[in-house]
Amino acid sequence: MLKGRHLIDPMDLTVEELESVFKLADEIIENPAEYADVCKGKLLSTCFYEPSTRTRLSFEAAMLRLGGQVLGFSSAESSSAAKGESVRDTMMTIASYADICAMRHPKEGAPKVAALNSPIPVINGGDGGHQHPTQTLTDLLTIRALRGKLTDFTIGICGDLKFGRTVHSLIKALSRYDNIKFILISPEELKIPDYIREEILMKNGLEFQEIERLEDVMNELDILYMTRVQKERFFNEADYVRLKDSYILDKDKMSMAKQDMAVLHPLPRVNEISVEIDNDPRAAYFKQAKYGMYVRMALIMKLLGVEKC
Amino acid sequence: MLKGRHLIDPMDLTVEELESVFKLADEIIENPAEYADVCKGKLLSTCFYEPSTRTRLSFEAAMLRLGGQVLGFSSAESSSAAKGESVRDTMMTIASYADICAMRHPKEGAPKVAALNSPIPVINGGDGGHQHPTQTLTDLLTIRALRGKLTDFTIGICGDLKFGRTVHSLIKALSRYDNIKFILISPEELKIPDYIREEILMKNGLEFQEIERLEDVMNELDILYMTRVQKERFFNEADYVRLKDSYILDKDKMSMAKQDMAVLHPLPRVNEISVEIDNDPRAAYFKQAKYGMYVRMALIMKLLGVEKC
Amino acid sequence: MLKGRHLIDPMDLTVEELESVFKLADEIIENPAEYADVCKGKLLSTCFYEPSTRTRLSFEAAMLRLGGQVLGFSSAESSSAAKGESVRDTMMTIASYADICAMRHPKEGAPKVAALNSPIPVINGGDGGHQHPTQTLTDLLTIRALRGKLTDFTIGICGDLKFGRTVHSLIKALSRYDNIKFILISPEELKIPDYIREEILMKNGLEFQEIERLEDVMNELDILYMTRVQKERFFNEADYVRLKDSYILDKDKMSMAKQDMAVLHPLPRVNEISVEIDNDPRAAYFKQAKYGMYVRMALIMKLLGVEKC
Repeated sequence: MLKGRHLIDPMDLTVEELESVFKLADEIIENPAEYADVCKGKLLSTCFYEPSTRTRLSFEAAMLRLGGQVLGFSSAESSSAAKGESVRDTMMTIASYADICAMRHPKEGAPKVAALNSPIPVINGGDGGHQHPTQTLTDLLTIRALRGKLTDFTIGICGDLKFGRTVHSLIKALSRYDNIKFILISPEELKIPDYIREEILMKNGLEFQEIERLEDVMNELDILYMTRVQKERFFNEADYVRLKDSYILDKDKMSMAKQDMAVLHPLPRVNEISVEIDNDPRAAYFKQAKYGMYVRMALIMKLLGVEKC
Repeated sequence: MLKGRHLIDPMDLTVEELESVFKLADEIIENPAEYADVCKGKLLSTCFYEPSTRTRLSFEAAMLRLGGQVLGFSSAESSSAAKGESVRDTMMTIASYADICAMRHPKEGAPKVAALNSPIPVINGGDGGHQHPTQTLTDLLTIRALRGKLTDFTIGICGDLKFGRTVHSLIKALSRYDNIKFILISPEELKIPDYIREEILMKNGLEFQEIERLEDVMNELDILYMTRVQKERFFNEADYVRLKDSYILDKDKMSMAKQDMAVLHPLPRVNEISVEIDNDPRAAYFKQAKYGMYVRMALIMKLLGVEKC
Repeated sequence: MLKGRHLIDPMDLTVEELESVFKLADEIIENPAEYADVCKGKLLSTCFYEPSTRTRLSFEAAMLRLGGQVLGFSSAESSSAAKGESVRDTMMTIASYADICAMRHPKEGAPKVAALNSPIPVINGGDGGHQHPTQTLTDLLTIRALRGKLTDFTIGICGDLKFGRTVHSLIKALSRYDNIKFILISPEELKIPDYIREEILMKNGLEFQEIERLEDVMNELDILYMTRVQKERFFNEADYVRLKDSYILDKDKMSMAKQDMAVLHPLPRVNEISVEIDNDPRAAYFKQAKYGMYVRMALIMKLLGVEKC
């Protein structure tokens, strides 16, 4: 079904297709040994035109844990881009060597251009401020694993909701599931863009609320998705001083939360989650990194059309 | 026969030895699965003192597709060269870890120095403007695969014939085969160096012709080997304006060519071949990249003395 | 016994634990084929926040020769450190992907911090001027292999004994074995630090001697451990001119040495050992590089708790 396809935008996959990926991820988590050789003889090329250790290593670990092999580059300087080659030509060469490619690029749309002529599946590993579909798949698999399903919960999304591509993709992706309430927590100047509010949330009749302070809604949340708020994004110093503590998750705020709430974060964090939370059983952000590897394992298998023997 | 040998200069191998490499490449292309484990337990070290993604990944894909493993570095900054270690000493250390080494170096002769004391085979992956023998092997295998043999054809070699090491090596290599006619297409100031004309072409009594415009000979060619002409190489602007279109291959020029002509290019290309040609069945430059991987697979097997079980 | 442990300081392992690592290394050297798959399905992450090709490739070769796989980064620029992530957080993410980690870091103590919360074993691959335990293990295995035991010999340690972390660790490590005499050869201003002299050598009642000229003791040595003396370390030009030749090992000095003396060097060398010595059977520094790979193979197996099937 997904064999030979590309993954450029998280919405490229239907809810049913996503579910088939997640089910396979479940099985891999359950019995990793049975999948340890399914990609034997297959090569993944990681073409990273800008560094992203976390994402690159997640793809590489995924392929290696399936018994496949990996080759590639981790920054533009070590690639032929420096010699003026087009992404399209580089992709054609990569396709001569590898069976599947994960590409990260600072320019929006580059992976899409690469995919246009590519005879092998291309996975967008992040293109500028645009898309990062495997992060969205990671977020969905994590929620699904923690709650058993992707419906019927209240999610708080906290931080810089204006510029965060991760957050926009997550809202779009969740808009396709039933009975989810969104609580959007951000400073006034960093609220979600109008097109998300109007084209996604309102158009689909979703329940949502926009507020300024995390403390005010902490006890309502089933999921809390944290992201960073950079000081430079505030319009004035007064706002920053007044609000900054609202965007740092600490023990005090966790004490207001439900006992089974889950805290997610795409990582890396700087100080928006206090390390004193790390051992709280509700802190799920490091588990999330592991789900990121598993969902990529499932995705690679699906796009290659590989099955368990 | 080749076990334990180094490959520094494309002429290090006799015509018979080359033929044995090409025959093995044929078999690998025919039955890749039978070669998927022949290098199990063997390590290739890619020592790239300057970045070259295409060449490095071709070597790595070759070794991985033989079931071997790869380690190495992709630029001088990440190597011990920065600490003042000689290439010879680095090679001795690499030989402690790996079974075979592919080395690229900005200094001419560096791989030869490395090979002098090395207990493991060293393959020159390009040394400055000097040699790049696996590119020459790639070119030969591609021609041989497309035409079934390495004799009896007319080859047009087009572009900067003065500074292109790829072109010089190719002419030398082809000079050992029968009944090849060379048509050398370049601006006056970028003609092949005298030593190639006198020591290789004339001395061996080869048929050749030097002309300025690709259009004039298009219909005679069985193979067209394209390379880039950089604007900076021209002596004056008038020449550049008069000639530049002659060195860009497009649909118009292709319409003058034989139906079974093959277009080769060592890549990366910039604009010397129009992308409108890419889907022409005569465009063989991306296939060539794939032959590059196969010929390296055969070469690695031969130098390691590994055979199909 | 060592399963799940970290290796941060060479003294983290008891003499008995070291012996178990060395015995396993012996067996691997004897029958490498029997260990070629013991780490199948295991991943090593090499997290190198500063480049060190020799050490990184040694770890990678070790893991690959055990049938495991490798992923990681070779400099800080290509890691998430650039985004302000703590070493602790990076380690938690790495632990989601890999089974064991080798970390090099320019800051002293960084691998120790990484190890504190890490669910997977962390091996210190060098932290600033502080520790480099696998170099010490390499030195010990080499001596043990060449002499059959780690007791009863006279070792000359020559060069910059003040700033060389390798040398300090080696003295500490050897202080736990019986009947070793130390001859410490250095310029006055580069003698071992007081704490090594008093806390290690004197406190343990070890026999040692401090001299200025290598020539004077050459004939007494069973092992000569060479390191570099940088010109900048000398207090004055006169001393440098008077002494510099004493710190270069050449044929003349080798002619004064015992027939079974062994020359070691942690590499890279610059000119402190003349290349004319390289073919002398007593030159053991390239063998030492190979022992470095074998001791890392044994160490990885022990920390992972992996055994020969």
